[in-house]
Amino acid sequence: MQPVQGLLDSEPQTVPVPKGCASLAEMKLPGQEEFDVYSAQENVPTGEPDSGPGSGPSPDGSSDTGVPKDPLLFIQLNELLGWPQALEWRETGRWVLFEEKLEMGGGRWSAPHVPTLALPSLQKLRSLLMEGLVLLDCPAQSLLELVEQVTRVESLSPELRGQLQSLLLQRPQHLIQTTSTRPCWGSARPRQSPRDEEAPLKEQRLNSLRQKLPPGAEAGAVLAGELGFLAQPLGAFVRLREPVVLGPITEVPLPSRFFCLLLGPPTLGRSYHEMGRAMAVLLSDPQFQWSVRRACNLYDLLAALDAFLEEVTVLPPGRWDPTARIPPPKCLPSQHKRVPSQMQEVKGPSARRGSPAEDRHGHPPQAPSPELQRMGRLFGGLVQDVRRKALWYPSDFLDALHPQCFSAVLYIYLATITNAITFGGLLGEATDGAQGVLESFLGTAVAGAAFCLMAGQPLTILSSTGPVLVFERLLFSFSRDYSLDYLPFRLWVGIWVATFCLVLVATEASVLVRYFTRFTEEGFCALISLIFIYDAVGKMLSLTRAYPIQRPGSPAYGCFCQYPDPGGNESQWTRTKPKDTDDLLSTDPGLVNASLLPPPECVRQGGHPRGPGCHTVPDIAFFSLLLFLASFLFAMAFKHVKTSRFFPSVVRKVLSDFSSVLAILLGCGLDAFLGLATPKLTVPREFKKGAGFHLDLFCVALLMLLTSALGLPWYVSATVISLAHMDSLRRESRACALGEPPRFLGIREQRLTGLVVFILTGISIFLAPILKFIPMPVLYGIFLYMGVAAISSIQFTKRVQLLLMPAKHQPDLLLLRHVPLSRVHLFTAIQLACLGLLWIIKSTPAAIIFPIMLLGLVGVRKALEWVFSPQELLWLDELMPGKERSTPEKGLEPEYSFSGSDSEDSELMYQPKAPEINISVN
Amino acid sequence: MQPVQGLLDSEPQTVPVPKGCASLAEMKLPGQEEFDVYSAQENVPTGEPDSGPGSGPSPDGSSDTGVPKDPLLFIQLNELLGWPQALEWRETGRWVLFEEKLEMGGGRWSAPHVPTLALPSLQKLRSLLMEGLVLLDCPAQSLLELVEQVTRVESLSPELRGQLQSLLLQRPQHLIQTTSTRPCWGSARPRQSPRDEEAPLKEQRLNSLRQKLPPGAEAGAVLAGELGFLAQPLGAFVRLREPVVLGPITEVPLPSRFFCLLLGPPTLGRSYHEMGRAMAVLLSDPQFQWSVRRACNLYDLLAALDAFLEEVTVLPPGRWDPTARIPPPKCLPSQHKRVPSQMQEVKGPSARRGSPAEDRHGHPPQAPSPELQRMGRLFGGLVQDVRRKALWYPSDFLDALHPQCFSAVLYIYLATITNAITFGGLLGEATDGAQGVLESFLGTAVAGAAFCLMAGQPLTILSSTGPVLVFERLLFSFSRDYSLDYLPFRLWVGIWVATFCLVLVATEASVLVRYFTRFTEEGFCALISLIFIYDAVGKMLSLTRAYPIQRPGSPAYGCFCQYPDPGGNESQWTRTKPKDTDDLLSTDPGLVNASLLPPPECVRQGGHPRGPGCHTVPDIAFFSLLLFLASFLFAMAFKHVKTSRFFPSVVRKVLSDFSSVLAILLGCGLDAFLGLATPKLTVPREFKKGAGFHLDLFCVALLMLLTSALGLPWYVSATVISLAHMDSLRRESRACALGEPPRFLGIREQRLTGLVVFILTGISIFLAPILKFIPMPVLYGIFLYMGVAAISSIQFTKRVQLLLMPAKHQPDLLLLRHVPLSRVHLFTAIQLACLGLLWIIKSTPAAIIFPIMLLGLVGVRKALEWVFSPQELLWLDELMPGKERSTPEKGLEPEYSFSGSDSEDSELMYQPKAPEINISVN
Repeated sequence: MQPVQGLLDSEPQTVPVPKGCASLAEMKLPGQEEFDVYSAQENVPTGEPDSGPGSGPSPDGSSDTGVPKDPLLFIQLNELLGWPQALEWRETGRWVLFEEKLEMGGGRWSAPHVPTLALPSLQKLRSLLMEGLVLLDCPAQSLLELVEQVTRVESLSPELRGQLQSLLLQRPQHLIQTTSTRPCWGSARPRQSPRDEEAPLKEQRLNSLRQKLPPGAEAGAVLAGELGFLAQPLGAFVRLREPVVLGPITEVPLPSRFFCLLLGPPTLGRSYHEMGRAMAVLLSDPQFQWSVRRACNLYDLLAALDAFLEEVTVLPPGRWDPTARIPPPKCLPSQHKRVPSQMQEVKGPSARRGSPAEDRHGHPPQAPSPELQRMGRLFGGLVQDVRRKALWYPSDFLDALHPQCFSAVLYIYLATITNAITFGGLLGEATDGAQGVLESFLGTAVAGAAFCLMAGQPLTILSSTGPVLVFERLLFSFSRDYSLDYLPFRLWVGIWVATFCLVLVATEASVLVRYFTRFTEEGFCALISLIFIYDAVGKMLSLTRAYPIQRPGSPAYGCFCQYPDPGGNESQWTRTKPKDTDDLLSTDPGLVNASLLPPPECVRQGGHPRGPGCHTVPDIAFFSLLLFLASFLFAMAFKHVKTSRFFPSVVRKVLSDFSSVLAILLGCGLDAFLGLATPKLTVPREFKKGAGFHLDLFCVALLMLLTSALGLPWYVSATVISLAHMDSLRRESRACALGEPPRFLGIREQRLTGLVVFILTGISIFLAPILKFIPMPVLYGIFLYMGVAAISSIQFTKRVQLLLMPAKHQPDLLLLRHVPLSRVHLFTAIQLACLGLLWIIKSTPAAIIFPIMLLGLVGVRKALEWVFSPQELLWLDELMPGKERSTPEKGLEPEYSFSGSDSEDSELMYQPKAPEINISVN
Repeated sequence: MQPVQGLLDSEPQTVPVPKGCASLAEMKLPGQEEFDVYSAQENVPTGEPDSGPGSGPSPDGSSDTGVPKDPLLFIQLNELLGWPQALEWRETGRWVLFEEKLEMGGGRWSAPHVPTLALPSLQKLRSLLMEGLVLLDCPAQSLLELVEQVTRVESLSPELRGQLQSLLLQRPQHLIQTTSTRPCWGSARPRQSPRDEEAPLKEQRLNSLRQKLPPGAEAGAVLAGELGFLAQPLGAFVRLREPVVLGPITEVPLPSRFFCLLLGPPTLGRSYHEMGRAMAVLLSDPQFQWSVRRACNLYDLLAALDAFLEEVTVLPPGRWDPTARIPPPKCLPSQHKRVPSQMQEVKGPSARRGSPAEDRHGHPPQAPSPELQRMGRLFGGLVQDVRRKALWYPSDFLDALHPQCFSAVLYIYLATITNAITFGGLLGEATDGAQGVLESFLGTAVAGAAFCLMAGQPLTILSSTGPVLVFERLLFSFSRDYSLDYLPFRLWVGIWVATFCLVLVATEASVLVRYFTRFTEEGFCALISLIFIYDAVGKMLSLTRAYPIQRPGSPAYGCFCQYPDPGGNESQWTRTKPKDTDDLLSTDPGLVNASLLPPPECVRQGGHPRGPGCHTVPDIAFFSLLLFLASFLFAMAFKHVKTSRFFPSVVRKVLSDFSSVLAILLGCGLDAFLGLATPKLTVPREFKKGAGFHLDLFCVALLMLLTSALGLPWYVSATVISLAHMDSLRRESRACALGEPPRFLGIREQRLTGLVVFILTGISIFLAPILKFIPMPVLYGIFLYMGVAAISSIQFTKRVQLLLMPAKHQPDLLLLRHVPLSRVHLFTAIQLACLGLLWIIKSTPAAIIFPIMLLGLVGVRKALEWVFSPQELLWLDELMPGKERSTPEKGLEPEYSFSGSDSEDSELMYQPKAPEINISVN
C-alpha cells in the first residue's frame, strides 16, 4: 500500500472534514499496524515532556516511542437498588468513550452522550477514596478472592462481612442486547488469562456489545449503592495485577482491570449513584486512566483526580440544565493539549502561543509535500516519481484481493457509465454528432485502463467532465465559425497540449499547482456549475420550442389524411393548394378524398397527412418538463437520504451513492409507462469518422503518458467519482455503537479495481440498444443536478448566502469569528465580479481563450494581497507560496497577541485540516 | 382582557412548545404589570423555605409575596491588554443571560452562548477575593470616588497608586453597534440617580444594546488584566449602595451596582482573563446575584460562590472540547429547583420525589379547570359561563385599540377567504353546486360575526373545515342514494344536531370533553388528513381522464369544420354520418365542404366542428399536474421559510404566514401566463335555492347560540386559523439580542378583530368576478398541502416514522426513554388498525355513521387500559379522567422509586406543558 497524498483533478470539490479530526490526508504509512490508531488516540503521551503543540507527536495521536499502548477500557456501573425489601444489583450505566444510561422505563440504552457530573459528587468521591481502601496491583484471581480482599475492613463485624460478601457475589441484572451484528474488530475473542476459571455465561457471550470492542479490551466495574445496615461509608478502589473475568459482574466477559466499590448508609440521598457515575467517568477519561494504570499509591490516585478537576469544563447552573444530554461532539478534543498543569505553568504563555500559521496547518505552511519539491533537473520530478512508485507495483495488484474491492468495482462501474452516458449524450449534441455515447464509452475505457496501469495515483478515475464538455463545445463552435474541420483541428489542439505538458513535466512545473488557491478553484468551479445549470435549463426550454404547447386559439388542431385522386390525376388538394396555412384556414371548402387517420397510418395506406396539426406532437413539452424536474428532484432526494434517520445505513448509503443511476432509471420508467414520444438519446449504429477517432485516442494515450507521469491529468479525471472510489475503499474502525465516530484507518490503494471498471466500461458498448430508451429530458435533469450539487459544495456559495442573512442569523463560522463581515462581503463581491467577467468572456467570440482565463484568476488572487491582510486571506482563502516566510513576524503576530484568550490558539488548532487534495483545473 | 383557557376546535393540532418553558397556557392575569415577567424569571425565591417543587410558586417564576424584583444585571468585562508598551482597556465580553465574546479579528460580537469556565479560575478567584478588598454598600457616587476607594490598599506605594488610578480612569475601547433598532422595552431611559454628574457619552447613548435592556436595569463592571509593576495580585469587589453611572466604563450608560477589579503580575499566564470571566459568569447567575445583593460580609460572598460551585455541571476534559461554544438552550432551567443545598439534605430523597403524575402536569391531574367542573344544575354551566364572561364585555372592544390588531385583521382576513375559497370550491364540487364559494363566503361571514359578538372565546375563527367537508359529502351522497332532497334533508339534520346540542348544554356534557384523549384526536385527525390527501390526488387524476393525454397512436388528431351544403340540403357528412369514430377513421373519403378552422371559430362562422379531436384539449392534463405540484411545493416551501436563516424575521414570518395565499397567487399567475384552458373555479352568478339557504343560516345561527354558550362549536371552527389569530395577537418581550428567547406576555383578547374579519369576508362576495380565474388544480394542490401539513403535525406520524428507523438512529424522545420500543410500536399498530377500520367504514354505505365512529375510538382507548400500564399510557397518550385517583399509589410509585437518578424527576418536570387546548372533534 502506498501513501496517497493527493488526488489530482479537474472539478474542484471541497470535502467537508470535521475540524480537528484525522482527515483523509493523514493516511496510514506502510508497515503501520492496523488497529493501533484506536487505542493510540486514547493514550496521552504524558511520558514525553517535550511534546508541545505542533512539535513532537504525529497528528493521529500515536506516540513515536514504540511503547505498547494501553488497552481500551469498558466501564460498567452496577447499582444496588431496592433497599430495604428487594436488594438487587442492576447495571445502570456504561462507558467506553461516552456515557450510555439505562432507560429503566424504556428498557433500552440511551443514545451515547457526553457525561455530565455534579462537582460535589467528585469531591465526595475524593474524600471517600481518601478514607477508604485502595489496593493497587491486587493479586486476586477470581471474584471470590477479590470480594474477600475488599471486605477485609476492620469496621465490619463478621456477620456483616458475610452478608456483604454474599451480596457482592450476587448476579446483577443486565439489559442484554443479543442482536447479532458482524464483529467490528475481526476476531473479538477476549484475552483470557490461563488461570481464569470462571467461564463466561451464555448471555455474556451472546452480547452484541462484545463484538464492538477491540481485542485486548479490559473492563472496569464500579459498584455503588445505599446499604442500610452499614454504619459508615465503605469505599474501595482496586487495580488488579492481572485482569480477570469477574464472573457475571460485567455484561461482557472481558477481563476486569479495575474494581471500585462505593457503599454507604442511605443518609446522603442519591449521592452514591452520582459518586459511582463520577468514578466511571474518571476511569473513562484517557488522562486519568493513564495515570491510574501507573499509580503507585493513594496519593498518585488523588493527584490524578485533582489533575482531572483542573481541566474540567464548568457550566453555570443558572444557564444550563444539568439533566440535558449533550450529543457526542463530531470529534474528540486532542489529548495532546492536556499536558500536565505543572508543565503549563513553567512554560508560560509564550510557549503556548507559537506561530499561528504553523498552528493552523499543524506544520509550517511553506514546507510543501516532498512530491511537490523541485529537484532542479530536467525531468527530475518524473524520474523521482517513477522511482518512488515502482517499489509498490506488485503490491498494487495483491492488495486488491479483498471483498471490499468487489463492491467498489460495481459502484464505480455504474457511476462511470452514468457519467459516460450523460456527458456522451450531451457531447454528441454539442459536437453535432461528431462524438457521442459510444465514443465516450470506448474513450473512457481505453484511457482509464491505461491510466490505471501506469499512473502514479491509480485510484483516480478518468471520465468526461464538465470543463471538458464546455471546452469541446467552445472548440466546436470556434471551428464552425471559422469553417475549420472539427476533428483535425481538435487533433492539433491535442498535440499542442501534449507538447506543453511535456515541457511542464520537463521543467517540473507541477510545483506551480500551489498557486491555485481556493479562490481560483472556486471561481472556476462556480463558472462550470453555472454553465451546467444554464445549459440544462436552456436545453429544456428549447424542447418546448421544438414541441410547442397548444393553446386554445392556436391553429394546430387540423390534420387529416388525403389520398390521391382515384382518377389518377393529382388530388384536388394539391390543385387548390393554398400558399400558406392562413389560406388553409379560410372557409374555402376544398377538401375531397380525405379521412382522419393518424399520420403514420395514413402514410402506410398511401395517403399524405395534410394540415398544420400533423407535425405537432401535443403533451410532449409539459411531459418533458415533468421528466426533467422529476429526475432532478429524485436525484437530489436520493442524495439526501444519506443524512436521514430512516432505513439501515447500508440502504441509505446505496440509495445515496446510486442517486444518479436511480434517478435515470425512474425517469426512464416513467417515460416508458406513459409511452409518449419524448426525444430520446441518439445512439449511432457505428463509430463515426474512424481516423479522427484513432488519432483522438492516440492523443489521449499520449496525454495520459505525460499526465500520469506528471500527476496532473489535464484531460479527464472526475473528482466526484474519484473521491467516491477512494471512499468505497476506505478502511474504518467500526466501534460504532458507543457514540464514537468511525475512525479512518486508511485506503486500500491498488490498481485492479480501476482496471476492471474500465474493462467493463469498454464492454458496455454493447449496451447501445438499451441506451436509446433514455429520454433526453432525464439527462438534462441529471445535468442540472450535477451543476446544483457542485455549486452548493463550495465555500463561495456559503459566503454568497451570507449576503442574504441578517448578521444575527449567520452560522457561527470560524471565518466570521476572525474576519470582519464587511471584508468577507468584499471578498465575495470580488469573486462574484470575476465570475461575471468570466461569464461575459465565455459568451463572446473570445470564448476560445477560456483556459487562459484561469491564469487571470491567479493574477487577481495575487492582486488581492494588496487589498486584504495576510491573516484575512489565511481565513478567506489560503496563503500563496513564497509569501508566508515574511509575514509571521510582521503581520500575524501582533494581531494574535491581542486576541483575548488562549482558546484562540486552540481554535486555530481546530481549523479543518482539509485533505491535501491538490485540485488542478485545466 | 380575559384569561384564555382553551380553544375549542375541530381540527386536532399539536402545538410544539419547548419543554419546561412558559407556554400559551400560562397567560397573564388581569392587573399584572407588563414587564414583571422578565425579571421575575430571573429571581430565585430562596427567601421562601417552603417552596418545594410543585407546591408554592406559580409556574412562571414570580413569587407571590409581592417583594420588589431585583433589576436585571448587565455585566461587562474590560480587559487590560498590551502590557508593557501600549496599555489599554478593551471590552472583551458581556453577559446578560448568556455570554457574548468579542471576536477580535472579526470585529463583532459572537453569537450568545452558554458560558463555560475552567474550575481553577473559579478557585483562584475565590482565593483572590478572600485576600482582597470587599466593599459592600460602598457610598461612592462617581468613578473617581470609587477608584480612590478601591486603590486605598496598604501594599501600594503612593506613586504606584497614582499610576493605577490614572489607568483605571482611562477610557476603554468598546465595539459599539449603533444600528438603530426599535426599543424593546418601551421607554428605555435608564434610572439615573439625581446626584449622578457624569453624563453618558454620545457613543453610549447611540448604543443599540441599550434599547434592548429593560428600564431599571443595572450594570456590573469587571476589570481584569496583567499589570507588570504590581508586586502581588490586587483583587477588589465593590457593591455600591446606590447604583452610579461609572462614566465610560460600561458600553451602555446604565448605573453600575457592582464593580470588580482583578489585577496582578503577569506570572500566572492568562488567568486574569479567565478569573474576570469567572466573576462575570458568577454575577450573571441568578442565584449568586440574589445572594450577593443581600450579602453582609465577605463570608456571605464566599458562601454564595461555594453554593454556585455546588451546583455547576462538570464536563470531563477528555470528552468535551472546552473551546466549543454551546448555543443557548431553548429555555432556561427552572430556578425553583435550586433550593439551597442545606435544605436538600434535610428534606432528603422522599421530599424530592413526589407524585410523578403531579410533576408531569405541574398540578394534580384529576383537577379539571373551573370551566369544566360540573355545577350539577340544569344549564348550570351555561349560566356560570355567561356570568363570568359578561364582566369583560366592554373591555373586549376597548382592548382592540392597538396597531397590532390591524395587522391581525389583514392576516386573518386573507387566511379566512383562502379557506372559504378552497373549501367552498370543493364543497361546490361535492354537493353538485348546491353550496359553493359565494355561500361559503356569506355563511362564514354571518356565522363568524355572530359568534364573535356572542361567544365565550371570541378569538376562535369559524370557517369551513375538513371534517365538515367530509361530512357534507357523505350527507350528499347519502341523500342521492336514497333519493332524498339534499337541502331539506340537511336542514333536518341541522335541527336534530341543534336539539342534541341544547340537551348537551343543559346537562353540562362539556365536561365529557376530557374523555377525548390524544388517541382519539389523532385517529380522527389522521383520517381527515388522509381523506384530504386521497381526494386531492384522486381529483387530480380524474382531470387527466377528463383531458386525456395524447399518445402517438391515439386517434385524437382529427378535427375539422364542416359547413352546411350550399344547396341548402343536409351536408354530405351528415348523410354519410358514420355510427362511431372507428367508422370515421375508415378510409371512406366522404369529406366535402370542410375546412380546418379551430372549433370556436368554426361555430361562429356557422359550421360544425367534426371529428374526435374537437373535444380533446391537448397539454391540459400535464399542465394541470404541474400546477398541482407547483402550488403544493410552493405552499410547503413558503411554510418552511420561517425556520430558514435567510431574510429578516419579518419577511420570513410574512412569507410563512401567507403561504397558501402566495401559492394560490403564484399558481394563478403561472396559469394566466401560459393562458391554457385549465378547468377553473365555478362561481355561480347568484345564490342558488333561496329558502334552503335561509333555513341553513337559521340553523347555523341557532347552533352558534348554543355552541357559543357551551364553548363547544360543533359546526365550523378552524384550528389553524384560530391559533394563527391568537399568535398574531401575542404580546412578547423583545430582549432578543442576547440569546434569550422572546418571552410570552399574553394575548390581546378582544372581539373586534374577528368581527372586522367577518364583515370583510361578507363584503368579499363581490370578488366573484376575480375568483373565476383560479384554476382548480391549484386548489387541489393547496388541499394536498393542508392534508400533508395536518398529518405531519401529530405525534402519531412521528411514531409511525419510528417504525422505519433503526433503533440507534431514533431521536431522543422522552417517550422512548420511558416506554419500551415494542410497546410504542404496539400502540402505533393499534392506532393504524383503527385508522384502517375507519377508512373501510368510510368507504362503505355505512359512512353516514361517520361521527359516531369517534365514540368508538373513545371505547377503544378505554379498552387499551387493559393492554397498557398507566405509566405507559401517561407517556403515549394522556390518562382518562376518573382513573388516576387510584393509580399513583399502586402503579406509578414503584416504577419511579426504581428509576436511576433524581434527574428522572426533573425530566418529568420538563415534559411539554402543552397549551391546554381542548380540541373537540365533531
